[in-house]
Amino acid sequence: MSELAERNCQPCRADSPPVAASARPALLAQLTGWSIEQADGMDQLGAQFTFANFAKALAFANRVGELAEAADHHPRIVLEWGKVEVRWWTHAIGGLHENDFIMAARTSAAFNAGFKN
Amino acid sequence: MSELAERNCQPCRADSPPVAASARPALLAQLTGWSIEQADGMDQLGAQFTFANFAKALAFANRVGELAEAADHHPRIVLEWGKVEVRWWTHAIGGLHENDFIMAARTSAAFNAGFKN
Repeated sequence: MSELAERNCQPCRADSPPVAASARPALLAQLTGWSIEQADGMDQLGAQFTFANFAKALAFANRVGELAEAADHHPRIVLEWGKVEVRWWTHAIGGLHENDFIMAARTSAAFNAGFKN
Repeated sequence: MSELAERNCQPCRADSPPVAASARPALLAQLTGWSIEQADGMDQLGAQFTFANFAKALAFANRVGELAEAADHHPRIVLEWGKVEVRWWTHAIGGLHENDFIMAARTSAAFNAGFKN
């Protein structure tokens, strides 16, 4: 796992500081396949993962769900046959918190550990 | 379960007939909460379901996944905290087959049987 994946998520409130624009490149550089996208007027951190069939994609969605429940931080997961899109953002601040980068790193670590073709 | 939910899905090929526009109202009338939406240039049959938390939404996504695997017909499932959006369409014909209405009915039946608040 990357160093980012091993950091702890911080409790997040509406007055938690978002990640400064200047700090984003260094965090993104620690992630592979993730990009910042605008959705619903907010910055979100998204990536797509591909699988050999539906069952493996569903199993990965469940693994991401486990990570989300463990951190009490929940993404948007789009599941189709052979692919899963995951997007992390922080509802309480309407944008990106360091937690989102941590969860993205954990998502990739889970994919690389058990789901990579 | 509705009569529609009990019908069998037919094997679907590129030359399978889509549901005629004239036949759609009668099929939609057998569904609650579903509407036909345009996405990626195709008609898709979609509905949203709400839940008390993430775990219940994830459990429902898994139940829909079971129905999909059993019928070998797979939807797009969008999972967020407390909500699941399901969209059915038939990739082979780039639009709506009767199978999609059957799967929508089964999706609603599963929700009503075990996931309704």
